Amino acid sequence: MAKQKKTQRPKAQTPKGFRDYFGAEVAQRTDMLRTIAGVYHRYGFEALESAAVETVEALGKFLPDVDRPNEGVFAWQEEDDNDNGDWLALRYDLTAPLARVFAQHRNDLPTPYRRFAMGPVWRNEKPGPGRFRQFYQCDADTVGSGNVAADAEICAMLADTLEAVGIDRGDYVVRINNRKVLNGVLEVMGLSDDGQKANVLRTIDKFDKVGEAGVRELLGKGRLDASGAYIDGVGLSDEQAEPVVAFLTSKSDTIEGTLANLRAAIGASSIGAAGVDELQTMADLLAAGGYGPDRIVIDPSVVRGLGYYTGPVFEAELTFEIKDEKGRPRSFGSVAGGGRYDDLVKRFTGQEVPATGVSIGVDRLLAALHMKGRLNTDTTGPVVVTVMDRDRMADYQGIVSELRNAGIRAEVYLGNPKNFGNQLKYADQRNSPIAIIQGGDELAAGTLQVKDLILGAKIAETASQEEWSDRPQQFEIPRADLISRIIALLDEQAG
Amino acid sequence: MAKQKKTQRPKAQTPKGFRDYFGAEVAQRTDMLRTIAGVYHRYGFEALESAAVETVEALGKFLPDVDRPNEGVFAWQEEDDNDNGDWLALRYDLTAPLARVFAQHRNDLPTPYRRFAMGPVWRNEKPGPGRFRQFYQCDADTVGSGNVAADAEICAMLADTLEAVGIDRGDYVVRINNRKVLNGVLEVMGLSDDGQKANVLRTIDKFDKVGEAGVRELLGKGRLDASGAYIDGVGLSDEQAEPVVAFLTSKSDTIEGTLANLRAAIGASSIGAAGVDELQTMADLLAAGGYGPDRIVIDPSVVRGLGYYTGPVFEAELTFEIKDEKGRPRSFGSVAGGGRYDDLVKRFTGQEVPATGVSIGVDRLLAALHMKGRLNTDTTGPVVVTVMDRDRMADYQGIVSELRNAGIRAEVYLGNPKNFGNQLKYADQRNSPIAIIQGGDELAAGTLQVKDLILGAKIAETASQEEWSDRPQQFEIPRADLISRIIALLDEQAG
Repeated sequence: MAKQKKTQRPKAQTPKGFRDYFGAEVAQRTDMLRTIAGVYHRYGFEALESAAVETVEALGKFLPDVDRPNEGVFAWQEEDDNDNGDWLALRYDLTAPLARVFAQHRNDLPTPYRRFAMGPVWRNEKPGPGRFRQFYQCDADTVGSGNVAADAEICAMLADTLEAVGIDRGDYVVRINNRKVLNGVLEVMGLSDDGQKANVLRTIDKFDKVGEAGVRELLGKGRLDASGAYIDGVGLSDEQAEPVVAFLTSKSDTIEGTLANLRAAIGASSIGAAGVDELQTMADLLAAGGYGPDRIVIDPSVVRGLGYYTGPVFEAELTFEIKDEKGRPRSFGSVAGGGRYDDLVKRFTGQEVPATGVSIGVDRLLAALHMKGRLNTDTTGPVVVTVMDRDRMADYQGIVSELRNAGIRAEVYLGNPKNFGNQLKYADQRNSPIAIIQGGDELAAGTLQVKDLILGAKIAETASQEEWSDRPQQFEIPRADLISRIIALLDEQAG
Repeated sequence: MAKQKKTQRPKAQTPKGFRDYFGAEVAQRTDMLRTIAGVYHRYGFEALESAAVETVEALGKFLPDVDRPNEGVFAWQEEDDNDNGDWLALRYDLTAPLARVFAQHRNDLPTPYRRFAMGPVWRNEKPGPGRFRQFYQCDADTVGSGNVAADAEICAMLADTLEAVGIDRGDYVVRINNRKVLNGVLEVMGLSDDGQKANVLRTIDKFDKVGEAGVRELLGKGRLDASGAYIDGVGLSDEQAEPVVAFLTSKSDTIEGTLANLRAAIGASSIGAAGVDELQTMADLLAAGGYGPDRIVIDPSVVRGLGYYTGPVFEAELTFEIKDEKGRPRSFGSVAGGGRYDDLVKRFTGQEVPATGVSIGVDRLLAALHMKGRLNTDTTGPVVVTVMDRDRMADYQGIVSELRNAGIRAEVYLGNPKNFGNQLKYADQRNSPIAIIQGGDELAAGTLQVKDLILGAKIAETASQEEWSDRPQQFEIPRADLISRIIALLDEQAG
């Protein structure tokens, strides 16, 4: 017989790239999702919750970067007798499931179908600092309308949403572009090679970082980047590159100016002209709704990585400065993006179903609000009823029940009550505002000791009791006055 | 070269055993989760959200039924160069992740650690009618307290939670038992074979269905069930079976009576006596908190399938009658369950960490409330602004913006406006209360037509216009009075 191996204990570890969220972090996200859902709902969108699991065939291959193992999804094969089971996967976004849902239920759904969805998505990619393999998205999409009024509405709603969650006007901008304009530019350049087109798009995406001169180099022979590495160029002649540069530098102080520059950049391309017309219509609709360039602008440098966009694309950027890892100032950047994708439902049905939508990166938006000190979720712990006499647990439980029935967050200490100091340490760790104490003396006198832990913390901080001497840190109250006195003290602490 | 295959379209289908939730269904669940979180929070529990994905080794094998392929979880292996990657899986409950979280973060968490968690869990099992492979749980657990006051608190909280979501007192009961009492019974029976013990537990679980005589047969030689099939018995003698029967029939009209019967059933077993003492303490604590036998009872027939329970176990049952598939009345049954599990954290740390908790089956509870007609989530659709003139989209968008800014749920029709009948059909499908119409005449006159769709639906239902003749189904208002008139009509409809 084989020698018996020592049983190994399992490791208490989240899998690589996953994390746990505690207390206030969870509450803050819940609050944000509720606020966003409120705005989406007011705009007429209906909630949809599909399962985390889809068939791989339904999901398709629409990830921004398809050059990864397993195409970037967590996938497995269903068990069946002939090793012939379906391949299933965790959804990597909320758009691919929506296309499946609409195709599956289209006879029962209104058209256009406005829906919102919120929840985690999963990416099977290399985790890194601040980069997780499960994160939340919060999407709104309109399926079945080819009218750019639908795109304009999504952009307006995105602006309203950012303000609703606490981003001030002026601290964000929704930038709009149109893929048809880009396609028009590629058309006048006479590019026919798809690989070269993709390279040009990738270069356009770098405009924000490398500027006009940098883009010229990257479209031509190549460029030495800041780290000293040489980046190969697309290999276009200066003349060929010109429409791209004209396009990228077409942003003007006014929408009219930008649109005029874009018309010049797309020359005689009819697809390009259609794109500029759509931008014009969106700008008019948004202006009519009161969404001016202080909130929504046309910006030709917006590309959006996903290949499936067919018309308007948009992106919400937070414009306030933060410090990067090296202490250098930079703007916070993108927190949401989307656009029109007219072919995703067609994959299933064969018939074109126009659609447009936006996805908000909830975790990034929470991080931004955290940096701005705008998360005001209440993190006060419960009132802690301490245990002086372990045989009187029922009495302490009675006090707690009374507090809870009055709507006050409260709990009895359930650890080993032997060491009273540990009970107060626990209350401290829980961020408790108040500890309640009842020993034998208080029981006999029909009273309770009330310890003001907020005041205690303040005194500990300033190391001077004098300034608080008019307010006692601990005092005795009649047992019968429990609720009224605790409510009064909580109010005083909050004020 | 191989003949090119015709490209197959992907099937628009949820994977087997998964489903989509629409509109009100999502809102109702969100509302319920918020209500439950509110109660848990008031009791001092802190939110925790772990990822959907855990390592298989951390999850362990604690599913109720372990005799299934792949142990009932959705699992896959991480890619790595040597085919040596970790096995990952979707969580099948919220308890196993909690044990991992506590072991991993125990130095940063308060002890006792009260936490609540809510979210989907996944089971890789054969789907059936009404049986899905993804469903919601909503758990609360106290880790690090061996005091049965923690168990009593969970039971009280469970009762409060059921009432908070809309289950009336009298329509539910929380039933409590203790595994130690069971173990005491097995001890006095002199059973040493683990398989036989498991068979006895399984038989006890059938007491509700087969009654005392049935249990006697199943503990002995076996039993012919209603379908005519013969069920093998455990093979005990009548004498051996007696303590089980005494135990199962020990429920009395009073808690004192039940406890006395249990003491008789466990004879000289010290583990059994400890169990009865714990039940006594819990009953005392609950009585002190005002939780009497109208809400919480001791019931020896509660077993709970999971092998990891070590002390108190409990179950919330809805007692009102429903009709089963065949129209026969039966009680709705269990919607929540839990108990004490003192060894789950020890798997990781080697040190015993006592813990207790409850899990509410959110989807079953929603189904119960649905049957009782207690779900009053607002399902009114948006006010729909119709499009009479497609060139005036900006005007219609302006009307919608005004309504939304006043907090009124509203949208403009974004489908093809050619057929006005389709626009009204759409409004109907959306459950819209009001349609707003502005053609050329109204524009010239500075007015809007307002169509009361709720009244329209009522007239269509009763097929008699007379009884509503004092209230017009459609009327004209000044454009400037938009907000005040729409608010007034919505109020009238709601009243």
